Order: sequence, then structure tokens, then C-alpha cells
Amino acid sequence: MTKKIAVLAGDGIGPEIVAEAVNVLNALGESFELEHAPVGGAGYEASGHPLPEATLKLAKEADAVLFGAVGDWKYDTLDRPLRPEQAILGLRKNLGLFANLRPAILYPELAGASTLKPEVVSGLDILIIRELTGDIYFGQPRGVRECPDGPFKGEREGFDTMRYAESEVRRIGHVAFQAARKRNKKVCSVDKANVLETFQFWKDIMIEVGKEYPDVELSHMYVDNAAMQLVKNPKQFDVLVTGNMFGDILSDQASMLTGSIGMLPSASLDANNKGLYEPSHGSAPDIAGKGIANPLATILSAAMMLRYSLNMAAQADRIEAAVKKVLQQGLRTADIYEAGTTKVSTREMGAAVLSVL
Amino acid sequence: MTKKIAVLAGDGIGPEIVAEAVNVLNALGESFELEHAPVGGAGYEASGHPLPEATLKLAKEADAVLFGAVGDWKYDTLDRPLRPEQAILGLRKNLGLFANLRPAILYPELAGASTLKPEVVSGLDILIIRELTGDIYFGQPRGVRECPDGPFKGEREGFDTMRYAESEVRRIGHVAFQAARKRNKKVCSVDKANVLETFQFWKDIMIEVGKEYPDVELSHMYVDNAAMQLVKNPKQFDVLVTGNMFGDILSDQASMLTGSIGMLPSASLDANNKGLYEPSHGSAPDIAGKGIANPLATILSAAMMLRYSLNMAAQADRIEAAVKKVLQQGLRTADIYEAGTTKVSTREMGAAVLSVL
Ligand SMILES: CC(C)[C@H](C(=O)O)[C@@H](O)C(=O)O
Ligand SMILES: CC(C)[C@H](C(=O)O)[C@@H](O)C(=O)O
Repeated sequence: MTKKIAVLAGDGIGPEIVAEAVNVLNALGESFELEHAPVGGAGYEASGHPLPEATLKLAKEADAVLFGAVGDWKYDTLDRPLRPEQAILGLRKNLGLFANLRPAILYPELAGASTLKPEVVSGLDILIIRELTGDIYFGQPRGVRECPDGPFKGEREGFDTMRYAESEVRRIGHVAFQAARKRNKKVCSVDKANVLETFQFWKDIMIEVGKEYPDVELSHMYVDNAAMQLVKNPKQFDVLVTGNMFGDILSDQASMLTGSIGMLPSASLDANNKGLYEPSHGSAPDIAGKGIANPLATILSAAMMLRYSLNMAAQADRIEAAVKKVLQQGLRTADIYEAGTTKVSTREMGAAVLSVL
Repeated sequence: MTKKIAVLAGDGIGPEIVAEAVNVLNALGESFELEHAPVGGAGYEASGHPLPEATLKLAKEADAVLFGAVGDWKYDTLDRPLRPEQAILGLRKNLGLFANLRPAILYPELAGASTLKPEVVSGLDILIIRELTGDIYFGQPRGVRECPDGPFKGEREGFDTMRYAESEVRRIGHVAFQAARKRNKKVCSVDKANVLETFQFWKDIMIEVGKEYPDVELSHMYVDNAAMQLVKNPKQFDVLVTGNMFGDILSDQASMLTGSIGMLPSASLDANNKGLYEPSHGSAPDIAGKGIANPLATILSAAMMLRYSLNMAAQADRIEAAVKKVLQQGLRTADIYEAGTTKVSTREMGAAVLSVL
């Protein structure tokens, strides 16, 4: 059966990098039905909303979503509900994409790109699993109100609600333990149980879930310490699982440790392994249209899509091998360029992957 | 008038490192009234509570508080309100210590201790200003309840309330802008305005406060990006101001960039510059009693105390110069030891500072 892929390129460098990933998918010799739709700023331009109804409908119907990036300074003055990033929040919530998988891997060829010393990051291979539909991102109530009590009573205050229900913690816990089983069998659950009720609750449930995986080692770390340990000794981690807010921060920090966030894909999965796949980096409006963006994170996101949602692991392997090959050939986009390598454009990089395939 | 200093050594390495800072204070030739009291695990042992009433009373009466560190694994099984870290939260709240100043400075002599490449961190000098009495740390309501609505209705859920009132943001904003005036005149306010109502509110008020400081450049950064930029190019920052939760994470991350968190002091100030001073590192129960802990962060915290709360800037300068001197002499505790330097114990390091004074 032909698989249907929703292609949401978005803003900034999104269209350029997604175009290369689409070429790669088309070169595999499989029959995919690729349907494009506008999202983010492009969605707002097309129909007045960052997540147009037709785009959401397409994403729901499709077997998987290939996503570029959203956001541009020119939308900064819009009301929050109309800003590009609402599209990504809306897709996560409406599609139930609760499990965000963010590998932070250092490619040996790119060891020099990291701002950390080679011995600290060489061989780095962490999988950060971020819960994506709960926490303070969506908790109600939230807003600006008159402060109801305490020393600031009567003043205006901004407020939000952090929350996790038992089954939300449980299901992301299972994702983490199952992923660890396929790796080095270590899960570190990051919390702030010493201060937050939400994360004491989170920790208690993680311990319960962990009992079902006696072959996996479970440890716990406070989020402030995790931010330190990622700098001090990132290789101590295998799978790191945490909530939506802490995961937002730590997964970006971990990507940057590699020095080549332009290489890192991500997957956001629902309970049935349907997913949205996007590069870990953003829309980079400053370099949009210049043809210099790195398409490899998006191409590798397409590979993750084949593996997790479309049951085509062999094709995923092919793409990943092709990406390794072009790195070995010394080809580099500007973001990962070093003296002694060959600087190429977005299209040249995409073409190089195609020709290896 | 004799200044009264509450000395709260706490747990783990706290007593060892505080002892050295006390020696330094006593060597200045000023007349201080130093009064000791138990806190943290030690408070719990002494009177069943991590922040005994007498300790809180002393801290309130004193002109300043010199604090060691709290926490030990042996208290992990206590109920949360009895755990050592509640003491520090209680002191902050009861003393109104809303402004946490955390310098992240790289000492040229210790450049090698960082896990980051020398060119990325050499000359690093960031001041992180963390709001300390608001945010999700103290917001009500919080707890575990039956989930009131949504897809998890009826399940148990953990929840907390994030909140900032207008005047809370305003006063920490003023602290940041005033600090920046004495430095490189740049404030970066870190928020998550794209997702959180609290931090859209925070950002709006920071912009208002910033108008009173036309000589200081104000920028805004999302917290996930800040965590990346601290890895990618930390020297872009001068003063970084943020809320309690984000500040907890980013200030620890920034300290670790220097590779020598054992060197970094911190101040927590109220509206009248009364303050609590403590090293940025923790109680390190694993090395407690071994005489190998680094006392310099605590000694430098005592210097901050002289400068900010006791109006003795010249004495603060003397201490800071003495610390620089012992580093130049090649003396190192184990945490900052490198081949070619002289490894010394906690007491030897303290004695070396004294002999320079
Ligand atoms: C754009 C923003 C809402 C989003 C988030 O905070 O989740 C982004 O930072 C991410 O990590 O995908
Ligand atoms: C011990 C803990 C409650 C505390 C905090 O989260 O504030 C600590 O991490 C700190 O930064 O002083």
C-alpha cells in the first residue's frame, strides 16, 4: 500500500532543506504519495493561521509528517496564537505526538566542530526522550490575572500550570525503557523532585515503570545537575528521559555539544508510532534562500521516518549510510565546514547523497 | 558598629570549607560577631527540622549570612518538608532574598580545567542574575490531585503553579540593569515567551524597565536557545537575567563551563542588600571529611559578603587578590589540579590565602 507522507516545509530554510529530503525519498524506488501543505508563517500567509485546517487534516490522514522548520522575525509582532511556532504546538497536541526522540550524536568526521574538547565528546551518542504533549506547555489555567493572594495581592501577574497525569508519565517511561533496551540499557530520568510536586510524582512513577525493566538501569538526576553533567561529562548518558519543559532545554543543549546541530534529526511519535519528523535546528531566517543551509538533518529525519513510522528500516539504513559516505568524502555545508574539507551548497549536498544512493 | 554574621555551615563539605572562610574573615583585623547555627541535615539532627527556628531567627537578626552547603544522601528518605534543601528555600523566602547573583568567571590560571576549548571560554565573565523567591518554586496551588478535566480526567496528577507578579519582575530587572551598568552594559533577559504566559508577561515588563536604562542594551532569548548559546559562544553574554527555574538550570550550566565550579561564589540579596553568601557548588557528601574540598568558592563568597552587605569593598578586594595570588603560586585543590601544579588540602589552601593576607 502506498504510504502517504505530509510534507510541511514551513518557513526560512525549511523549503530548501525539505526539497533535498524529498529528492532522497523519491530516489529510493518506493512509491510514496507526498502531499505538500503550508505551515507556520507560510500557513499564516496562505490562510491566516499558522496551522491551517487543511494542513492539520492532511497531517492527520497521512502515515507520517515530514516537517521543515517554522518561524521568522517578521511574524514576531503577531498575537501569540497566530505566530508560526503555534503550528508545531498544535500538531503535537492534535496528533498526540507525545514522545520526542532527539539523538545527540557526534559524527567522528565532525569532531572538530564541537566547542568541547575532543576527548569529552568523541563517540558521544545520547538519546534524549522528551515528553511532548504535557507539562507546563499545555497545562490550564494560564494567563495574566490579578494576583489572588500573598505579598503581591492585587497586582497583575502572569501564571501557568505545570502538570503530569500518571498515564502520561507511564507511557513516556515505557518509550524510554524500550529505547534503552536497544541501546546501552541505561535510563536517566531528569526531574526537579526536590522542589516540584509534578516531578516528585514523575519520579515516583518512573521508579514503578522501571520495575518492569529489570534489565535496564534507572537513575535519577535533578535538572540543574543534568545541565552541568552534560557539560562536564556528557558520555555518562545513554537514554535521558524528561518532561516537556526540561526536555526543551536539555535536548537543545545536548545537540549543541556536538557542534553540528545541522546534522541532528528528531522524531515526535504518537502511541502507534505515527510521527512527525523534523531537523533539530530551527528555520534560520538569516540564511534562508541563500542555498547554504545543511539539508542532512532533514534527510536523516526522513530516514527516522522510514524506520519508525513506515516500517522500512532497510531504506533508513541506506540513507544513513549515504550521509556517512558524503561526510567521508569531505563534503561540508558552511555550518560544519573546516579547513581541508570541501564546502558545498544545500543542493550540492543533497545531490551528493542522491548519487551515493 | 560590630557586624553580626550568621555562619551556617550545613552538611557534607560545608563545615570544612566554611571554617577556612571564617579564618579569612578573622584575619582581616575587623571585629565581626560570628554566630554559628546548624542548618540542613545538621539542623534536622539538632532539632528535627532543616531550618530550626533559632537558626532562622539568627539569620534574620544578622547583617549577613555565610552559608556552606546542605544535603546528604542519608536524608533522601525523609519527607520532603524535612529534607536539607528545604532550609535554603526557607531562608530565601523568609529573608526575602529575591536576587541571586552568580558570576561565571574563568580564572586564566584554570583555563585548562574547562571541558570547553580554550578559545571558547578564555576570558569568560558572565553574571547570571536569577530571581529567587518567585516562579514555580513557591507558586500555589501545587500538589497531587485528581485530574479535573481533559483526556486524563479522574487520574492522579502532579501539578505546580508558575507565576510572577509585576513588581517581582520589575525589581529583579532593576538589579540586572544596575549590575550591567557597572559591567559591559548588556542585559540578556531569558524567557520562554513563545510558550508561557508567565514569561510573555516577564518579557513585556523587562522591556518597560529597560526604558529606564537607555545606556544598557537589552536583548531577549528563549531559554532553549540560551542553553545552546552558553555552549556555542558563552562570551556573547554580559549580564543574563532570568526566573527562578530557568536560572537554576542556566546558572549551573554556566558555572560548569568554567570547569572550576569549586571557585565560584554566589550572593542572594534582599531589597536592602542584606544577603546570604554561599559557594555555587553543593555539599559533595562523597568527599566530606576528607579534607580535599576546595574552600575558595566559600572564601570568595565571604568577599562578596563584605562588598554587597557589609560595605567593606576594600577588604573584599584584599581577599580576591589573595585568592588570585595563591592560584598564581600554583596551589590547587584536587578538583582543579593539573599536572605541573601543587596539590593541596582544604586547610593548606585556606592557610595559603591567610598567609597572603
Ligand atoms: C518553537 C517552540 C514552541 C518549540 C518548543 O518549545 O517546544 C521548540 O523550541 C522546540 O523545541 O521544538
Ligand atoms: C537545593 C535546591 C532546592 C536549590 C534550587 O533549586 O534552588 C539548588 O539547586 C540551588 O540552585 O541553590
